[in-house]
Amino acid sequence: MTSKPAIQSTLRRYQSEILTALRRSIERAKDAAIHPGAGDPTPFYGQMQYHLGWVDASFSPVAGNAGKLWRPTLLLLAYEAAGAANTGSDNAHYLRCALPAAVAVELTHNFTLIHDDIEDRDAERRHRPTLWNIWGIPQSINTGDGMFALARLTLWEVVEEGLEPAIAVRLGAVLDRACLVLVEGQHLDISFETRDDISVSMYVDMISRKTAALMGCAAEMGALLGTRDQETIDRLRSFGYAMGIAFQVRDDILGVWASTEELGKTPAGDIYRRKKSLPVLHALEHASAPDRQFLRQAYSQEVPLTSAQVEEALAIFERTHTKAYCRSYLAEHCRLAHESLANVPHLSNPVAARALDDMETLVHFVES
Amino acid sequence: MTSKPAIQSTLRRYQSEILTALRRSIERAKDAAIHPGAGDPTPFYGQMQYHLGWVDASFSPVAGNAGKLWRPTLLLLAYEAAGAANTGSDNAHYLRCALPAAVAVELTHNFTLIHDDIEDRDAERRHRPTLWNIWGIPQSINTGDGMFALARLTLWEVVEEGLEPAIAVRLGAVLDRACLVLVEGQHLDISFETRDDISVSMYVDMISRKTAALMGCAAEMGALLGTRDQETIDRLRSFGYAMGIAFQVRDDILGVWASTEELGKTPAGDIYRRKKSLPVLHALEHASAPDRQFLRQAYSQEVPLTSAQVEEALAIFERTHTKAYCRSYLAEHCRLAHESLANVPHLSNPVAARALDDMETLVHFVES
Repeated sequence: MTSKPAIQSTLRRYQSEILTALRRSIERAKDAAIHPGAGDPTPFYGQMQYHLGWVDASFSPVAGNAGKLWRPTLLLLAYEAAGAANTGSDNAHYLRCALPAAVAVELTHNFTLIHDDIEDRDAERRHRPTLWNIWGIPQSINTGDGMFALARLTLWEVVEEGLEPAIAVRLGAVLDRACLVLVEGQHLDISFETRDDISVSMYVDMISRKTAALMGCAAEMGALLGTRDQETIDRLRSFGYAMGIAFQVRDDILGVWASTEELGKTPAGDIYRRKKSLPVLHALEHASAPDRQFLRQAYSQEVPLTSAQVEEALAIFERTHTKAYCRSYLAEHCRLAHESLANVPHLSNPVAARALDDMETLVHFVES
Repeated sequence: MTSKPAIQSTLRRYQSEILTALRRSIERAKDAAIHPGAGDPTPFYGQMQYHLGWVDASFSPVAGNAGKLWRPTLLLLAYEAAGAANTGSDNAHYLRCALPAAVAVELTHNFTLIHDDIEDRDAERRHRPTLWNIWGIPQSINTGDGMFALARLTLWEVVEEGLEPAIAVRLGAVLDRACLVLVEGQHLDISFETRDDISVSMYVDMISRKTAALMGCAAEMGALLGTRDQETIDRLRSFGYAMGIAFQVRDDILGVWASTEELGKTPAGDIYRRKKSLPVLHALEHASAPDRQFLRQAYSQEVPLTSAQVEEALAIFERTHTKAYCRSYLAEHCRLAHESLANVPHLSNPVAARALDDMETLVHFVES
């Protein structure tokens, strides 16, 4: 069990640098968009800023929730773990070299959230109306596209920071490949909604694309920026990928069994939402025929579930040992994450050692 | 006036190479998506193939209309005009080096069409149901995202073909910048729908982003692949950009005044559709107060226009000399296109000379 202060301190290590670089990326694009006779670019970039939690729907600044920045943090930790601080440069400079990539990953993640919210018709995100809910579907599709383009455009600033172009091309290809895999995952996720034959292995394939690919990509990009050693790059990518799976499975567990307000989840919320996540898919594969019949009916009925139905679903999950299964699945991927870290070639560099420690903290947090 | 055979022969010069490379790009991605336990990638990539006109809604091959491939053709012509054939390589090889970029531009263009069709709620494209009309909005947004990611992923194959990474990064940055500008243009276009104060200069700014940016980008990418000479690159980009404006203005003219079946347009179709294109925006700026009032009312009424209203709109366009204005606007941008071509540094290379001739053919076609 990781203490709350430890995980907070890890997640906040680069927060201010990441946020500054993110803001700068959008401001630069907005400034470049202004030319004589042009339409006002404020609403277009304002939508991006709203989504990121920095402004309200009238584009006035607000003190908001900037999110946890998991992916860019992972990228910067991998960058340091791979030996970035060995270059002899001062601290500020070596971070600056990787920030365009960190911003690219965070913007890419947020572009997928904007489109996911439209695709799932989610009216709220982080207790605020979603983009499409305010500006309509056409503009929100388009703003998502813009954020996707801006992600990549920002990435190329690594070359201005002195990175050799051959590595920049590798970064671009790694990010583009992850994006394609992520979109394949989203295709599967949408198609699963209308199917009742989803197996655990199909689900794991879907989340490995939709969630783990971009986490693996973030760690790989950080490693590529920090080292030429292929083993280090491979281990760090494996770490990010295992973390991505663990991250999603933890979310699935909390979605069913979280019981405290503190975690920001409704108890059994994913059952009420009829979300086809790991618990119910495992239960369906292992339940008795009548229990399976009950779950199938409950997850496909038109009307909302009653609390008695939710209780019965939880009882079925008990009988199929689903919670134990999910926890062991989570533990297995956390073990893989620890193993990947343990196999990162050792550097006698205090910055790299601290980054590896922080990555251990992330795993402890996810497995706790 | 360009003869029909001349323009057909120009547009078909690289058709088979472009189509082969496009098909290969999608097939490669589809093959890479298959792994044990995975969901079936056929519907995801099948939607892309359907949009491109190669398969029907059941993913069975059809002999379809592959489109004119203007942008990749422009890219390959610019590549040859910039001196690509001077490298001493055989013909097949020098084209192969540029094809990944040509595919990237064509996929990028098609991704924007998929999203535009959703945003505009267009139920048909090229006489077939649009993607969202068959597979729904969520999957179609996502398939568009996938095509956008695949466009970029394909671009990196230029490095496998031997291009130096520094130029590949420039290609990526040019494409990403064009995508961002294009999306800004689409933002303006959508926002114009609900406004009645759009000026000609705002409209021109919008189409310069939405249409001209990617045409300029295609020509610039071709030039970057073919030469290191910055003047050649600048002239060819200017050519593509002027062609993009001319292309759109020609479309606007045909949308109002085309009268033959041959052109595939309904006479006055853009008036019936109340499209805020160049003709009506010009007329609004130059009409008498009662005529302006008539147009404003007609373009905002709930019910479809009557043919008498369309006749009256055409009469107002006569009184404001709108057709002459649009034709002179078109001529001016064709003149800029010719001028850019005339200023491309001359090469004593028959392939480059033929490419420049073909580009002249394209301008003659657009201005005729």
